[in-house]
Amino acid sequence: MTPWNQVTIIGTGLIGGSLGLAMKRAGLARRVVGVGHRPSTLDQALASGAADETTLDAAEGVRGSDLVVLATAVGLFEPLLRQAADSLADGAVVIDVGSTKAQVVRTGEALVPAGRAFVGCHPIAGSEKRGIDYADAGLFDGAVCILTPTDATPADALARVTDTWAALGMRVVRLSPAEHDHLLAEVSHLPHVVAAALVQAVRPDAEPLVGSGWRDTTRVAGGDPGLWRDILLTNSGDVAAALARFREALEALQDAVARGDGDRIQHLLADAKARRDRIVGEQ
Amino acid sequence: MTPWNQVTIIGTGLIGGSLGLAMKRAGLARRVVGVGHRPSTLDQALASGAADETTLDAAEGVRGSDLVVLATAVGLFEPLLRQAADSLADGAVVIDVGSTKAQVVRTGEALVPAGRAFVGCHPIAGSEKRGIDYADAGLFDGAVCILTPTDATPADALARVTDTWAALGMRVVRLSPAEHDHLLAEVSHLPHVVAAALVQAVRPDAEPLVGSGWRDTTRVAGGDPGLWRDILLTNSGDVAAALARFREALEALQDAVARGDGDRIQHLLADAKARRDRIVGEQ
Repeated sequence: MTPWNQVTIIGTGLIGGSLGLAMKRAGLARRVVGVGHRPSTLDQALASGAADETTLDAAEGVRGSDLVVLATAVGLFEPLLRQAADSLADGAVVIDVGSTKAQVVRTGEALVPAGRAFVGCHPIAGSEKRGIDYADAGLFDGAVCILTPTDATPADALARVTDTWAALGMRVVRLSPAEHDHLLAEVSHLPHVVAAALVQAVRPDAEPLVGSGWRDTTRVAGGDPGLWRDILLTNSGDVAAALARFREALEALQDAVARGDGDRIQHLLADAKARRDRIVGEQ
Repeated sequence: MTPWNQVTIIGTGLIGGSLGLAMKRAGLARRVVGVGHRPSTLDQALASGAADETTLDAAEGVRGSDLVVLATAVGLFEPLLRQAADSLADGAVVIDVGSTKAQVVRTGEALVPAGRAFVGCHPIAGSEKRGIDYADAGLFDGAVCILTPTDATPADALARVTDTWAALGMRVVRLSPAEHDHLLAEVSHLPHVVAAALVQAVRPDAEPLVGSGWRDTTRVAGGDPGLWRDILLTNSGDVAAALARFREALEALQDAVARGDGDRIQHLLADAKARRDRIVGEQ
């Protein structure tokens, strides 16, 4: 695909920094401008090659760019877009990489002026690690990226954004913003809440006894609390619904354990194992 | 330490097979007898070097051994010990590697005849994988092994068993059987139940969207349903208590999400992250 002439990445952390590295490596961006609020992070973005130029000012940072990427915590998208909206070049495409989409896309479409496009994106990549220190040009390779276009999304912007993620090795899937939030609540937001509660259920005496199972089960609870607060706040309805489904499944197991019903326990565990083996095997 | 003259491992799966390999590599066993119920598994145990000799008959298998290891699902310990008890050599030490201890130790001490010792052991090693195919001589290295002696445990047997696990690179910890079950419910049995329920909360449409977070959070749900049925059945009281603690923590988060209380969400997530970082960092 024709490379973007200038790409502005607002938020040069794990995802933003990795995206800068990946786009440059793939020849998808002639020039990358990094926007951040900490000079030290911006220096690292420059030093690592994730950005060619940096600024603390979002309005200044987006000037002249044909692609602008919002890569901060979801809760900062709105204030940042308000700052930068009037400086967006004619024809500019704005995307985000946030983990929730309905509220983000509503805000994005409302704030991007006429002649500019907003396309909601969610590359399902990353880890519980945070910051440019962990940036990795290969982060997106082989993972899924969900785009959430609406009736207001210009077809040409959608096509270019699709091609960009595909060129980074991602499998691009399209969903409505509502559908995205609904499904991601089950496979991502719910596990986060559950992992945090699992950590909190452990008493000090048990701490030295955790093994690899516990470490894996709770890994995501090591993620950034601010990022996750924003995710849960902007998808609270779907998270509540996923929690209800989870509690129903949990209560079935809990009940079987309380009754000492070995056949029922085995049936439920075997069902979970079969489903998981299939889901993981299909990937 | 002086090696055991002959070690019988009943159940040559992932843990039993790994133990045979590890003990032979470390020079802890002059000879290993493998007992199983499937000839093909026993053939593999021989071929891999995890056993020097095999039999389908537990009574025959324990004859002349100074160490006998129960390494099947917890639910089979009692029938196997009943079969083998009369054939145990004078002075033999019987250990198990099961994930629950109170019921196991009660049974073991009741069934082992006078002049033989029973020592409950739980090496916290393994994975969701199952079977001799995944046996690994290094499985125990650096992990924790919990021994659960009682007033009835002979000091010399306890010392030799301690030395054996330590010689395999394990950090040996002693707890009462009840304490063990109480603590393991929080760090192992609870996460298993929760992971299974997480899998069951995912609807088919969401399956293609699972990422590495979901895969890690649910990994243990890929474990063997029969093994885990036995674990949950033999520790149902502590599992119920751990579930109650977990649900309390979950409800606090659920409530904060429902109220859209960002400060409270962040506080709870930050607390979980800090605890987890500390627990994992201390290991």
